Order: sequence, then C-alpha cells, then structure tokens
Amino acid sequence: MKIALVTMNVKAGQCEENVRFMKDKIMQAREDGADLIVFPQNAVSGYLLGDTWLDDDYCRYIDSFNDDIIKESNDIAIVWGNIRYRNHRRFNAAFFAYQGMTHMRVKKNHSSPYMNDFAYFENNNINSAIEYKDDMIFALNFGNEIQLTDMNINLDARPYDIDHNLDVAGNVIYVNACGMQNNDHSIMLMEGGSCVYRNGKCLYHAPYFVEDYAIVDLDCEQEDCDKERSLLNALTMGIREFDKQVLGGRLPWVVGMSGGLDSSVTSALFVHALGKERVHGYNLATRHNSETTKSNARKEAEQLGIECREGAIEDLVAQAQETLLKEYQYNIDECPVLVKENLQARARGYLLNSFAGILGGVVINNANKVEVSLGYCTLYGDSVGAISPIADLTKVQLFDLSKELNKVFEKEVIPMGLLPNVQKNRIDWEMPPSAELKENQFDPMKWFYHDYLVEHLGNDISISKFIQSYEDGSLDETIKPWITYYGLDNPKAFIEDLQWFLSTQQRNSFKCLQLPPALCVHHKTYANRNLTQMRKDDLYIEKFKKKYELQ
Amino acid sequence: MKIALVTMNVKAGQCEENVRFMKDKIMQAREDGADLIVFPQNAVSGYLLGDTWLDDDYCRYIDSFNDDIIKESNDIAIVWGNIRYRNHRRFNAAFFAYQGMTHMRVKKNHSSPYMNDFAYFENNNINSAIEYKDDMIFALNFGNEIQLTDMNINLDARPYDIDHNLDVAGNVIYVNACGMQNNDHSIMLMEGGSCVYRNGKCLYHAPYFVEDYAIVDLDCEQEDCDKERSLLNALTMGIREFDKQVLGGRLPWVVGMSGGLDSSVTSALFVHALGKERVHGYNLATRHNSETTKSNARKEAEQLGIECREGAIEDLVAQAQETLLKEYQYNIDECPVLVKENLQARARGYLLNSFAGILGGVVINNANKVEVSLGYCTLYGDSVGAISPIADLTKVQLFDLSKELNKVFEKEVIPMGLLPNVQKNRIDWEMPPSAELKENQFDPMKWFYHDYLVEHLGNDISISKFIQSYEDGSLDETIKPWITYYGLDNPKAFIEDLQWFLSTQQRNSFKCLQLPPALCVHHKTYANRNLTQMRKDDLYIEKFKKKYELQ
Repeated sequence: MKIALVTMNVKAGQCEENVRFMKDKIMQAREDGADLIVFPQNAVSGYLLGDTWLDDDYCRYIDSFNDDIIKESNDIAIVWGNIRYRNHRRFNAAFFAYQGMTHMRVKKNHSSPYMNDFAYFENNNINSAIEYKDDMIFALNFGNEIQLTDMNINLDARPYDIDHNLDVAGNVIYVNACGMQNNDHSIMLMEGGSCVYRNGKCLYHAPYFVEDYAIVDLDCEQEDCDKERSLLNALTMGIREFDKQVLGGRLPWVVGMSGGLDSSVTSALFVHALGKERVHGYNLATRHNSETTKSNARKEAEQLGIECREGAIEDLVAQAQETLLKEYQYNIDECPVLVKENLQARARGYLLNSFAGILGGVVINNANKVEVSLGYCTLYGDSVGAISPIADLTKVQLFDLSKELNKVFEKEVIPMGLLPNVQKNRIDWEMPPSAELKENQFDPMKWFYHDYLVEHLGNDISISKFIQSYEDGSLDETIKPWITYYGLDNPKAFIEDLQWFLSTQQRNSFKCLQLPPALCVHHKTYANRNLTQMRKDDLYIEKFKKKYELQ
Repeated sequence: MKIALVTMNVKAGQCEENVRFMKDKIMQAREDGADLIVFPQNAVSGYLLGDTWLDDDYCRYIDSFNDDIIKESNDIAIVWGNIRYRNHRRFNAAFFAYQGMTHMRVKKNHSSPYMNDFAYFENNNINSAIEYKDDMIFALNFGNEIQLTDMNINLDARPYDIDHNLDVAGNVIYVNACGMQNNDHSIMLMEGGSCVYRNGKCLYHAPYFVEDYAIVDLDCEQEDCDKERSLLNALTMGIREFDKQVLGGRLPWVVGMSGGLDSSVTSALFVHALGKERVHGYNLATRHNSETTKSNARKEAEQLGIECREGAIEDLVAQAQETLLKEYQYNIDECPVLVKENLQARARGYLLNSFAGILGGVVINNANKVEVSLGYCTLYGDSVGAISPIADLTKVQLFDLSKELNKVFEKEVIPMGLLPNVQKNRIDWEMPPSAELKENQFDPMKWFYHDYLVEHLGNDISISKFIQSYEDGSLDETIKPWITYYGLDNPKAFIEDLQWFLSTQQRNSFKCLQLPPALCVHHKTYANRNLTQMRKDDLYIEKFKKKYELQ
C-alpha cells in the first residue's frame, strides 16, 4: 500500500490557499498511484487562530471546506485535520474519506493548556477504526497517541520545543505541519518531520522545518531516519514565515548593531534567513561604547556583507536633557543615574524606529531570554521591535547558535571574542556582556547558573523542588560546578541570590506585556500574566531561611 | 436566620492577607449573631491568577487555607470559594462548613472562555444541597445559576460589563467580589453588589464597586434595592486598586495633557481617584498645536488643581532630524509625511517616560477604544504607559463620562467645548478630534457609527449578521440616523467604508500586542490575537459586492 505523506506549511487563516495546495497534492498523489494521502492537523485553517475560533461565521466557513475535500476522494483515500462545526459546537477533528464520502471522523481530546484548546473545542474522545484496502485496519489519532491496530494515522500541529522530541513508535503514519503560527505574543514554529513507522521500524522520515511530500510504500525497506532537528533551522523557518505571512515578504529589516553578542546573532540570523539585501544595520554609539564593540559591529557587518551606518546619539541625548531643563525645568544631573541610562536606551529606540519609518521597514528586537525574564531592558528603548527572534533563548544557548551560524556562513560572522572561554568550572570573558550605558557597567547575571534558572524554574522544576534538590544534593550535574563557581554552596548566598532572582523576575514581569512577539522554542514560553505580587515564592524561601537560621 | 454577606475586595495572590480579612469578618459576624457568613468565589487567592494556576506548589499552598477556615466554623456556618487541589487535580469550588467540618463542597462548571477556566480547572457539575438550621435547605452555586430549593447561595467573581447586568431572582444569597484582578492585558473590575432575594423580593443590595459587610435577616422586610452601577465608580475603583496593588500606592502619575478630550478625561479620572497631589500634567506642544488646545490643557489643570508644565518639543524633534541627517545621512524632508508625524509622537513618548523617570513615577496612557481598535496610534509614541484607563471606551462613551466627571467635581474640569453638539441626526464639533501632528489634520473616524462598529462587530454582532441587518433594514435604531448622516445608505459607500474599517483593524492589530494593560468594561476585550491576515471578512464583503454589482 502506498501512502502520500504531506508535511504541509499550513498558513493560519488562509483557508483558500491551504485547500488549493491540498487539492494540488491530491492530484499529484493520484498520479503517483497512492492509495491514501495524509495531511496534518488543522490543515485547512491552521491551528492557532486565537479567539477567532469563537467567531461562528468563521467556523462555519472553515467547516464548509470539508465537503470540497470529500468530493476529491472518489479514487483515493484522504485523511486531513479540520474542525467539525455543527449547531455552535466546535470539535477539532480528523477525517478519513474515500469513494466520495467520510468513513471515519475522530474528535480530538485536549492536550496542552498553552494552546487554549480547552477554551475553543469540545472534548470527544471516542476511538474508532476502519478497514481500508488489503484488509488493513486504520485508526485515527492526534499527537503521539497510538491504538492497538494495524496502522495508526496520527495528525499533528506540533510546535518545536528545544528540550523535547516527540517519540513515535509502533505502527504509525505521523503527519505534522510545518511553518509558523502565533498565539498572541508566542510565535510557534511547527516542526514538520512527518514519518512512517511499521513494527517499530522507520520506513520514512521527512526533514524538519520544511515542506515535504513523499510516497511511502508500507512494504518497503527501512530507511535512514536520522534527521537533525536544528535550532538554527527552526529560527530560520520562523523568520522567513513571519516575514512573508505577516509583513508580505518585502520590507527592510532594521537592526541596532551594538557589537555585542545578541545583536550579532540576530543580524546573522536575518541575513541567513532573508539575504543581505533585506537587513540594515545601525550602530548607535555614545562615549560609553568601547572601541572594541564599535569595531566588532563594523567587522560583523563586513562579514555579513550588509551596510551598517555608524553614528553618535550624544547630540540627541544632550538635546533631550536640554529640553527637559529649558522647557520643563528638570536638571538631569540631579536625577538618579538610571534616568540618564534610560534616556540613552530610549534615544536608540527612537532612532531605530525612525530608520524603519524612513526605509518603510520594521525593527528587529535583540533581547535574549535572560534579559526579558529579569526585565533587564528599558521599555520603549531596547525593547522595541516587530519580532524578537532570540527572546526564548538564554545567553548560554546563544553560544552554540553562534558557532552554528559561523559554520553555515563559513566565516566568523559572530566574533569569537564575544563568546566566553568556558572551562569545566569557570568562565572567562574577553568582553563580558554589558549594556554600556555607563562606565564599567557589566550585566548582573550569573551566567550559566541564572540561564539554568530562567530555563527551568517555575516550568519543569518548581521552586520547592529546586530548593529541595539543593538541600539533598540531587541538583542537575550540569549546574553543580556553577553553584560552586559563584560561591552559592553557602546556603546564605544561595538563598539570597534566589530571592534576588525571583523578586527581580516578579517586579519586572509587567514589562513582558509590552514586548514584541517572540519566536518560541518551548511549548510554554509567554505565560498569561498576573500583575499583582504573588507571595508564593517567599513561602519556600522563608522556610529555608528558618531551617538554616538565616533570618 | 441572620446571614453575614461579605462583598470582599479579594487581592489576587495575597492569600494570607485575604484569609486574615476573612477571619476578622467571621469574628465580627459571630459577634453580630449571624448564623451564616458568605464570602465570594475564590476569596482566598483571587480568581484571575493567569498561568500561576498551573503551578502545583502554589495550588497546594492555596488549598491549605481551607483547613484554617474550616477550623473557624465551630459556632457559625461559613461559605467561601476557593480551589480544591488533590493529586494534581484542580477544581474551582465552593465550601459550606459548620461545627468544624465541611458539609458541602460544590465544584464549578466552566463559564466564559475569556477567563481561561477551561485551561485551569476540571469540570464537575454535581449539584447538592444540605439542611442547615430552621429546616432550611441550602444549595451552592456559581454566578446566576439557581436550583429549586429553599435558598441558593451563589458565589461569584464577576467583572463589570458596561452592557450586561446580572439577573438575580428567586431565592438567592448572591455574594460577589469587588476590586481589581487582571488577566494578562485585561484588568477586570470585579463589580461587587452582593444581594439577597427571597421569593423574588430583594431583602438587601450592597452598593457596587466597594467593599461591604451586611447582616441580612431572611425574615426582614423588603428594602430599596435600586443601586447604581456607575461607569465612573468602576473606573475609579480600578485606578485605585491598580495603583495600590501593582505600584504600592505612592508613585506619581505622569499624564500628557494635549487639551483634547481623551487626556482631559484621563487626568480628571486620576485626580478623582487618587487626589491632585498624585497627578502631574505636561503639555508637549509643537507649532501644529492650536492655541485652543493649549489653553484647554491649562484651564483644565487649573480646574483640577494640578500642575501642568508647558513646554515645546520642537527643538527635540529638530535635533532628531539633525541626528538623522548628520549622523545617518537621512533627509527627513525627502521622507513620507508619516515619518515626521511619528517623530513628533515618539518625542512625546520619550519625554513622558523621562518625566516619569525623574519623578520616580509612571505614565498614564490616553488611548480610547476606537483609536486602539483601528491602530490610530504610534507605537512607543502616544501608546506608552503603565495603564490605559479608557482604552475599552469608545469616544461616544467618553461624552457621558465627561458630563459625569464635571458633575462630581461640581465644575467644568472637562471643557464642554470638547464635546460635540449632537442633534438627532447630525454632529457638530467646535473642536473636532485631531492628533495635531500636521496642519488641519482631523481624525478619520465616522463618530457614533464607527464607535458602534468597534463596540459590537465581531463581538455580539457578527459581520454576516451586520450586513444582513443592513440589507433587510433591521439595524439597531440608534445607528440608522448615522448611516444616513454619513451617506452610507448607498450600498457602495457602505461596503467600502466597512472594508476600510475591517482592513484597518486587521492591518494594525499587531500594535495591540504592545499596548499597556487596560481597564476593561467588557467581559471580552483583549482577544488572544493571531498575527497573520485572515480572509474571513472579505468573504461576506465580496458576497455583498457581487449582489449589488459593485465589483
């Protein structure tokens, strides 16, 4: 039996375009002699439509395409994901049609709370299976569920998660979407990588993060299924699809190139994804910016082959101070130093948006996940932009990405001097990360250790569990050397740092509401946030302090 | 039987403070000889905790307070809302305890998708009722459900919705929370207004938007239950609670006073809520600002008794142009006029944030709902701020609010010249709304008509239904005169305007992701947004065009 596997770049909200694509592939599969063609979950409309799912007009419209597809099934079996909408009831469903009619329809059960399935669709977990050709029994499922039958057909719209691979085994035809779909601030990167397993052996595996069409004979030999699920490919797909689907694929991208690591990575990512003609660099210097960072920015632009205009923002900042004094009688020299730092950061945001306006383009935001999480950024200053490509990556994750970028460019587009020299239990920087807003200013983060906290705390590791692991010595081995390096094996230092970390996170979480949408590399990234202060963290910290008599 | 009714200002995430308050009230009710005391839904933790509901540590912590409350019930019956958390299962529940133990526990069924109940809590709709004193049968419910029994106790955490009153009838002890709780960008205003009905007659009604404690004798006479649910009181409560709970209740508030209607209203609202010492006005003029608006701002500040510093932003804008030219070789005079307008709007955002930094305060955002909905604002310019107090109100809704404000201030704090003279079917402005970013610039909105669309389209009225009502003449009577006034009774003009409205809304919806959190006066306000273009609207518009041969 021959199966056509369609790893489809589903465009959210573009039903007509999606269905046109599906019909093309059905025609091709017919010509290729396939018995069955399989499309991903929500192939017609996309999966992440936000509150548009609550619009009855639109649900009726999406549902209406099911009949169009069923009509195509006279001489080929077709499996696809789409909603089923009847009498104001919405189900997320999978359809199995042949001989011009639907023979099986399975409704999805809720999975993750982060996708909001719960709010939009009813549950209806009734299993069913049918016989189709060669006495073969097929069942329809979602994600990685399987049933005991000859062959499971599993539809998915699974976004990439840097830490989690999907396990597929047994007898499965697994078909996933690729492309970009967003859920409010979270831009999810559908990972593709459809595959066929029979008796636990892989018969075919599509590459990740690209559209793919393949005919798989269920009686064929095993193939090499070792496909790489690379972070760089995920981000590249995300940038390309956002650029095309949200902005029409032709606007210039403006990037502030400070010569630091973050902006080096975002510039290189965009040049890699969209080509050097589409990226416009700007260095916005003050006297606090070292010659090294300026020359780094220059060199990097040269390596990438993009223009990087250099200029000073001093006069603009000076005029802002002058306006504050002359027009509004405020003397900046009598103010806390933070006010002056923010004046600089916001002058940059002001100019970057002006460049974008002048070119008719948009701004790339350069924030990384540690900065965002701790609120180490200035609203309307370095936090501006149309997209944050690295806001779900910690600084440490940028180290590997930088090496990967230099590899694909076959040259040092990210100056290696920006990466620290990491020994087993120590870290040496030629140029430690700095916002360069005042003299000798360095970022207050404990690199590697805080990266780990940002990545795991409150996500897969609860605060109580983390503190307990610290106490009983069962912490992750990768993090232990850093605990020692930063002197945190002393309980007092440990708990004070943790308290600083959590309270800084909480105090600044309001900023996250106003950040640009971000490419997500985790299923859970941007949370539905509460603005009032929670005391949940104090609870465990106080207990620890009492125990070690640290009060 | 005597019931103590506690309309409680539940603080989200402040369990210890909430439970301390509850214990105080239990003690008071005991002294007052009450047989039963009733608290609102989620009285312990607050209702809108966002994704904190997914934190097992925290759920265990919140659940642990139930035992503390049960212990108080030896000599009084206590009813309260809190979660029930066991074995990683979360229910939103109501408890009925006396003689030191729980006698009834009812788990809530999901209600609105906008509150995310679906994602956080399991459903468990088992009704139950118990007998407590005087042979009386009590049932526990949520919202406005009722059962056929002697007395229903209904707990709620119901936010204000300007268009919808809660209907309470029959035999009900209805207890609602007051105060502010947020769901991401949406700041919901719990409306309070607890009440007791017996045989359909009102025995007591608490005022809206304030904390209240009352002893109600179920055998008492009927009282006057006509309590006003005023928009001004809702907003005032929201501002006060946000100020206190999120910012500690002592930071200065910075407001840009243009002399237009929106900033007049926000300034007056904040002075009304927090007092004149807390509000600092700034006029940020260019040569495009008329003398009238400047003098309006001055007069209004005088009337409110606040300082309003006046200054010109021309030099700052000129320096930005100079920096663009000298440092980056861009001549602004060769750019589209929008670039220059945005330079002005962002200079204002830049300065307002500097004032806030200097004072150690935060900025009030002045956007109204029509502007936000159509994206008629400049990101990082007039869209900055810590809160948007009127972003869920249309321009037309501001007219009434202005009159209300002048009434409570007992003087013209909002210059009446800013309000239009509205006749039955025409509107005359002394000063039509304008962003004043260039000469003779006026807002492109069709006031009253677009206000209506912003308020209803895609919410309670679908696009298809609206078009159908236009065709069969069954449109809302209030909107018909405006259709005529704006010449939209011509199908071509009608559909072109609708297309402009919908496409402008959609094209600019990305801006909403980066706006400040807003005081909500509707249950559904900020949607979970999809960034890609949907074709759903075109569908009905194309159909209409075909029918009237307008293609």
